Amino acid sequence: MADQYAQTRGDNRQAGIPVIRWEEPPEGPVVVLLDQTRLPAEEVELVCTDAPALVEAIRSLAVRGAPLLGIAGAYGVALAAARGFDVDEASTALAGARPTAVNLSVGVQRAQSAYRAALTRTGDPRQAASAALAAARQMHQEDARASERMAEHGLALLDELLSGGGHRILTHCNSGSLVSGGEGTAFAVALAAHRAGRLRRLWVDETRPLFQGARLTAYEAARNDLAYTLLTDNAAGSLFAAGEVDAVLIGADRIAADGSVANKVGSYPLAVLARYHHVPFIVVAPVTTVDLETPDGAAIEVEQRPSYEVTELVAPQVPVMGAGGGIPVAPLGTPAYNPAFDVTPPELVTAIVTEEGAVSPVTAKGLAELCARSRQATVG
Amino acid sequence: MADQYAQTRGDNRQAGIPVIRWEEPPEGPVVVLLDQTRLPAEEVELVCTDAPALVEAIRSLAVRGAPLLGIAGAYGVALAAARGFDVDEASTALAGARPTAVNLSVGVQRAQSAYRAALTRTGDPRQAASAALAAARQMHQEDARASERMAEHGLALLDELLSGGGHRILTHCNSGSLVSGGEGTAFAVALAAHRAGRLRRLWVDETRPLFQGARLTAYEAARNDLAYTLLTDNAAGSLFAAGEVDAVLIGADRIAADGSVANKVGSYPLAVLARYHHVPFIVVAPVTTVDLETPDGAAIEVEQRPSYEVTELVAPQVPVMGAGGGIPVAPLGTPAYNPAFDVTPPELVTAIVTEEGAVSPVTAKGLAELCARSRQATVG
Repeated sequence: MADQYAQTRGDNRQAGIPVIRWEEPPEGPVVVLLDQTRLPAEEVELVCTDAPALVEAIRSLAVRGAPLLGIAGAYGVALAAARGFDVDEASTALAGARPTAVNLSVGVQRAQSAYRAALTRTGDPRQAASAALAAARQMHQEDARASERMAEHGLALLDELLSGGGHRILTHCNSGSLVSGGEGTAFAVALAAHRAGRLRRLWVDETRPLFQGARLTAYEAARNDLAYTLLTDNAAGSLFAAGEVDAVLIGADRIAADGSVANKVGSYPLAVLARYHHVPFIVVAPVTTVDLETPDGAAIEVEQRPSYEVTELVAPQVPVMGAGGGIPVAPLGTPAYNPAFDVTPPELVTAIVTEEGAVSPVTAKGLAELCARSRQATVG
Repeated sequence: MADQYAQTRGDNRQAGIPVIRWEEPPEGPVVVLLDQTRLPAEEVELVCTDAPALVEAIRSLAVRGAPLLGIAGAYGVALAAARGFDVDEASTALAGARPTAVNLSVGVQRAQSAYRAALTRTGDPRQAASAALAAARQMHQEDARASERMAEHGLALLDELLSGGGHRILTHCNSGSLVSGGEGTAFAVALAAHRAGRLRRLWVDETRPLFQGARLTAYEAARNDLAYTLLTDNAAGSLFAAGEVDAVLIGADRIAADGSVANKVGSYPLAVLARYHHVPFIVVAPVTTVDLETPDGAAIEVEQRPSYEVTELVAPQVPVMGAGGGIPVAPLGTPAYNPAFDVTPPELVTAIVTEEGAVSPVTAKGLAELCARSRQATVG
């Protein structure tokens, strides 16, 4: 394994949850990550001193969530550059660490382009490394601003769609501070509703097999004093049937040009349930999640993860007993179907909310316009 | 706790899985149960010497599954009678051990009625106890025969609905030998398809929160050499979308007079997914599961189980760490919504298969006719 070590965080709860940061101690620059695999049991930071360590952190899901992966990828390129490693090699490794999240390769590419441009312009690798770092930092800041704007647009949409009373929102996986340079995507909208006094209940899907809902969203909800209740993913049907869900809000890992949404496995069943019960199904994601190069849902590569995530229980504090590092729950040798994501077609998505505004109904044309607006804003 | 002790089973794998039996050692009669909470890690038997021990076994899910609960309830009444305890008191406790499964109270009532009738007739508690035991044994045998007939009717229906090629069947929770006096309900149909060479794949939902699919159905599938694959409940949507599911087969805990089906939580979302993808959704259950006293789905009482089943990981071999006896996965104090069952309305059920034949489409009239036929068969 590459050079990566853990340090227990001091008590800086008041300052929010710093999930990623760049530091320059005397030994050389490092990228410091909150190790999300240890939450909520422990708040432990992972210090990465080279790109392979960051690749490992991405693969093990110590750092995860589409927008945050983009930022991590960019910092990874900056780290390789600052430490004098081969930047193109590091970029390839980082971009390929997880196949589905488009933000990751977008982030890597952005820092890599900044590096190359500066190197061509100045011929000085140190100046090029500074340019890569500046690009990563800019992405980080932009993402925080994007969170704010998604929260505004999302809350406005909720208020428009749901008349009267507090909102009861169902969410899946984790889409808050832990996936973002800011307060997140879907979770940021729920948080805005809470601050505006209009969140009646946040229903939190536990999100098997890795329990991102139980571990991470519940953690963020508890920290922010939201009225929240956890449920197994398969109990959502009962809530819909009982009329207890006003809207579903989820993030996205990749959005194809036609509006097909790849997100954590379990999102698509919620979309079908929402349609059957006439409940809005809303996707919240920054424009960088939209991949115009991917024409439709069928073209989205869905990452298949190992069987042991399903056949063994893996969680913080679980003692290592099985081959996958968890406790066997199924008979030995049981094969598992374990896609990390599923794809929801645009006709089941009520709206896609981005920092540039919402598209509803979801059409290729509407999405393309949003993306063009975003590019103008970046250029302008 | 009442008088209940465990004994490790010898290796009698060849003989199938004896999930419940009556024994009469010199110390007095006992009901011996396979402790399903320890599967698949260990095959341990639980020896119950009185009705409270059996109530505890039912509550803790050591014994579970609608038809088997009926048999267990009947044996429990016979045990109380044979040991000279208050039979009415034992019957009330047994019938109330779990609220949703109608078979439990049906089984209890049947043994209790046999006891009372014999007592009135003979005035001899020992003869009455024998009558209760005979009633329990008869139920046990009838259930084994019912399994066979459900498997025949179910397979015939599958062959009729699905033309050509092997069947790819999705199932939820556990509905095999472990829930029955025979080979079960939905699982028995899959097993019949397997034996007939027409089962291409059994997709096994893990069934959160208690993993009955991962622990028990996978165990039964492996023992019977079925081609099976495990999945998280929320991954079923991806299978449907990919056209990998030909039919859904589930059991039932209670069927209302209108054909509404209460079954393990997560069944209803599968019914909605099946409808959306034009896949047959088939319920397999003995006629005793139909409760004509319950008019419709809204009248079915759904058992709410404790939060810790969701907030903590509980499985065989998991060391006790949290208040609920498992490993905390969500932040301390997280509230959970944890219904044991959900209710699928008749319009989403393609067919209900019983030992007396199938009802399709599912109507109150069709169900009532099946029940009448069953009563005639019992009387005749």
